[in-house]
Amino acid sequence: MGKLKLRYKGTLVVAEDDISRSANELDSYIESLRTVAETEEYSAPEASINLPFDTEVVSRVKDVARHIGYDHVKYIIHIGIGGSNLGVKAVYEALQSLIDPLTHNRTPKIIFLDTINAQTLEYLVQLLLTEVESPEEIIIHMVSKSGTTTETVVNAEILYQKLTERWESDAVSSRIVVSTDEGSLLWSEAERLGFYKLVTPKQVGGRYSVFSSAHLFSLFCAGVDIDELLMGARTMRDRCLDTNIEDSPALASASILYVHNSKGFSVHNSFFFHGELESLGRWYQQLIGESIGKLKNIDGDTVRAGLTPITSIGSTDLHSMAELYLGGPKDKITTFVHASSINTTKVPDESLFPSLDAGFSGRSTKEITDAILSGTQEAYQKQHLPFMDIILADISAESVGEYMQFKMIEVMFLAHLLRVNAFDQPSVEQYKKEVRNTLGGL
Amino acid sequence: MGKLKLRYKGTLVVAEDDISRSANELDSYIESLRTVAETEEYSAPEASINLPFDTEVVSRVKDVARHIGYDHVKYIIHIGIGGSNLGVKAVYEALQSLIDPLTHNRTPKIIFLDTINAQTLEYLVQLLLTEVESPEEIIIHMVSKSGTTTETVVNAEILYQKLTERWESDAVSSRIVVSTDEGSLLWSEAERLGFYKLVTPKQVGGRYSVFSSAHLFSLFCAGVDIDELLMGARTMRDRCLDTNIEDSPALASASILYVHNSKGFSVHNSFFFHGELESLGRWYQQLIGESIGKLKNIDGDTVRAGLTPITSIGSTDLHSMAELYLGGPKDKITTFVHASSINTTKVPDESLFPSLDAGFSGRSTKEITDAILSGTQEAYQKQHLPFMDIILADISAESVGEYMQFKMIEVMFLAHLLRVNAFDQPSVEQYKKEVRNTLGGL
Repeated sequence: MGKLKLRYKGTLVVAEDDISRSANELDSYIESLRTVAETEEYSAPEASINLPFDTEVVSRVKDVARHIGYDHVKYIIHIGIGGSNLGVKAVYEALQSLIDPLTHNRTPKIIFLDTINAQTLEYLVQLLLTEVESPEEIIIHMVSKSGTTTETVVNAEILYQKLTERWESDAVSSRIVVSTDEGSLLWSEAERLGFYKLVTPKQVGGRYSVFSSAHLFSLFCAGVDIDELLMGARTMRDRCLDTNIEDSPALASASILYVHNSKGFSVHNSFFFHGELESLGRWYQQLIGESIGKLKNIDGDTVRAGLTPITSIGSTDLHSMAELYLGGPKDKITTFVHASSINTTKVPDESLFPSLDAGFSGRSTKEITDAILSGTQEAYQKQHLPFMDIILADISAESVGEYMQFKMIEVMFLAHLLRVNAFDQPSVEQYKKEVRNTLGGL
Repeated sequence: MGKLKLRYKGTLVVAEDDISRSANELDSYIESLRTVAETEEYSAPEASINLPFDTEVVSRVKDVARHIGYDHVKYIIHIGIGGSNLGVKAVYEALQSLIDPLTHNRTPKIIFLDTINAQTLEYLVQLLLTEVESPEEIIIHMVSKSGTTTETVVNAEILYQKLTERWESDAVSSRIVVSTDEGSLLWSEAERLGFYKLVTPKQVGGRYSVFSSAHLFSLFCAGVDIDELLMGARTMRDRCLDTNIEDSPALASASILYVHNSKGFSVHNSFFFHGELESLGRWYQQLIGESIGKLKNIDGDTVRAGLTPITSIGSTDLHSMAELYLGGPKDKITTFVHASSINTTKVPDESLFPSLDAGFSGRSTKEITDAILSGTQEAYQKQHLPFMDIILADISAESVGEYMQFKMIEVMFLAHLLRVNAFDQPSVEQYKKEVRNTLGGL
């Protein structure tokens, strides 16, 4: 279905002129994005916008999947962290997280290994050795752009050892697919060991890589319609290369966030009214957190830029955070996200608890949750708390593809307005250096 | 095991004198808490501190559990939202969330229904009707303090209807346990319908109710050692009634948060280095969010107080939020939480990927995650980012009980310093009123 809508008329607390002025400042940057789009290459830092149009990526993903016999697989173990797993997780959980915990025999399922946890590894190995008859029923997808991510290497080392205690090492090796930059150390190791290999374009950073094979491969093997996902992304990229604020949700949202941030709003609350979209919120947290949370701007001045991203779930968090959001510091700009078409069911006409029936009986669950959402937005308006409202057509691969492409371009725009580099992460190196020192010196 | 430690020497960015001064301001409030403790009653707003000592609560929980035949049960469906489920979820997931998704036949399991979602209800009913042979294998625990919570009533209505389409209504009714305030409308309905009833003391608000039967009942039925949980809470309450900052983690933490907040730190980041503690973070978000996020102080002045609570998971979020935390705005005070004794395993001596071995081979997973944690803290210190360090002895019911009691008293102290009411939530009423209007007028 698709066709995301963004509404913000009358729900902001800054002047419309300020927003238009910021949007206009992006004209020439949008022009340069159009040039990136025309090249169809992966040379510019913004090159991720070309991934949804790259038919070779999809054919390679499907070829490897067919070759490895993905249709007989029960479990896809996706080993990766940060930009190497948040995208897969966001899409997969949007479509499967309500079903998975409540259906035991429904496979294939993706199991995620991100941080290192001995207990998780132990239970996972037990699960695989009891519920799987042969290695043919699993795929291990190891994802690391640099090829040297500590958690990913350690998880792969331990899992490989435990599985080869039971199965032939050749049989296990034939189930491993590695996604990494061409020419990385992991690439060479995978080559030597005869693993399947999928390449991530070097210029595309992890947080912008959701439409690369590193993410698409696990999703395709798990039965997600990646063609629909990419179709949503393509439609949205075209909308966001427009310089008209009415047509481009990325342009509108980036300008709105920028102006509010400059007026002291320091927290961006993505408030999803569907629990299954929580991981989409986590994916966005990394995207905006790493892209605009910066010590220095592109001129080298110390600026400590950044908008702290938080994720809320409706109606759950209304029973947890509403007091703070409505009464606490006015430091948050909120983006509500909800779908217009969702599954619904009816509350029985005849109440089990008649004295508790405040207009529920005979109503659909959608009517009730819609009332909670609109009640919340009314309360926000009465308190003059600024918000945007994003309406997805439904919760589908296509809508999620639209949302993710919209947000990646929004963040590039926002970084441009803030004069920070959306594509590097210099401060992360600090803690990694300390970790290397400790491990080297143990 | 138990015995939580709090460290903060040399890791803060405010004067120690300011912290001691704030701690001293709490002397008389601590005195009044001691009086509450001596009464052993539920009349003061702080009465929740008496719950872990109330042996009648535990015997009633165990009596009802035995009566309903909890030891033959496969699924406990816990219906509740906000303060009526975050506590159960925090404890249960700390102990079970790594195991549950990877072991299909291991029961009992708790299934949570909080917000309204038609699809979740559909899958849940399917699960129960296929994997359960008779109603005897389930317990439905419906929790609402007021007895009128929209989501809880609606979920219970729909679930009851769907189950009685298949099973005799008497058989389903005999599996329902209701936890609510004595005399609430739900109490009367439960009485009329002949459901089991457990009472929550009226003075104990939802966010302080984790040690009441509303939470203990589901936990006990799921096999959690609630005696250990309460033992941890009792030890901690005694420590936190001390006026010496060295002995009371609540006193130290509240004073530290207060002073940092007054210097412009507006976000409190609880950074758990164990993924299974994420729901403990969500529980704390409600606790502090609703208790100190206030439009007005106790003198009636508009203050818009509040410290936005966020939850981070190590090492996962280092690959997502580190750039913002280290380089972005200096508006966050961080509390790291980790356990000293955890399960560990060894990385193989012989590397599968020798060129990627940055000192991992032969190391334990604990050594590696410890190195990541200490590397992170080093980087924080170099950037002068303030933090506290909480060390749990292990991840057990007892340690979690300690942590929760510590945090509940910390928040009472912090509210007292900020001169706000830790026990009401006036702003929440705003959106609820709007929702009622919409539903009434549909």
